[in-house]
Amino acid sequence: MKLYQKILLAVDLHPKCDNAAVKKALAIAEETGASLHLIHVIEHIPAYSLGQAYPSIIDLEEEILKEATKELGKLAHKHHIPADKQIIVMGSPKAAIISKAEELKIDLIILGSHGRHGIALLLGSTASSVLSHAPCDVLAVRIKE
Amino acid sequence: MKLYQKILLAVDLHPKCDNAAVKKALAIAEETGASLHLIHVIEHIPAYSLGQAYPSIIDLEEEILKEATKELGKLAHKHHIPADKQIIVMGSPKAAIISKAEELKIDLIILGSHGRHGIALLLGSTASSVLSHAPCDVLAVRIKE
Repeated sequence: MKLYQKILLAVDLHPKCDNAAVKKALAIAEETGASLHLIHVIEHIPAYSLGQAYPSIIDLEEEILKEATKELGKLAHKHHIPADKQIIVMGSPKAAIISKAEELKIDLIILGSHGRHGIALLLGSTASSVLSHAPCDVLAVRIKE
Repeated sequence: MKLYQKILLAVDLHPKCDNAAVKKALAIAEETGASLHLIHVIEHIPAYSLGQAYPSIIDLEEEILKEATKELGKLAHKHHIPADKQIIVMGSPKAAIISKAEELKIDLIILGSHGRHGIALLLGSTASSVLSHAPCDVLAVRIKE
């Protein structure tokens, strides 16, 4: 019996940390014979934070989405992860990760953790909420800074 | 390169959930060639909670320690885990697990999670604190209830 079949790795598109997390996730995927999906969640921008540079929140979010898609593509390409396993979602990180995990029947969610940042950055105070609401196992990998 | 060398599984001595967690931890240990330690943490009893049955907190804690050691022994015996890999500590679960992980140079901490209880019971609101303070990777395994 395979331990895991489908792994979902949440990346925050900080190149240095992501590379280490992807390497570890790939090693686990290889060891267990699982497939690996990457997910990056873009949080919606609060209206009050809008400056003068963009005519609307929607334009700014589209710009961020375009850049994030490019960055995720670069990361995935470097590690030979195909386009259909690169996921970008807008929303709350916790809800987006859990909902995608359910949709794809993921059995292991991996989160990169680099000390003060990492999990804190990605999930804020909702880390324990992800743990108790995730439909599957959750692995926090420690990335040496 | 082995993914993990030394795994520490925190158990709460709820027989049904522990058995599932131990099975999963053993499967991961086998898959990665790691050794498996079990740890159970007994929290200190607040003085105000003392009833009439015990002359002192110390007597009560000793009684709990004796019972927990027996229960952990049974669980370990069932899964062929030797005595030198059975650890009982008194203190704060978060601090005890992290300190033992450092002492034993553990590279993966596994916590059993059974929905509402589990991680919540074991670590309370400090789950995210364990994640960000652990010296190593942390895996929360979901136990079906």
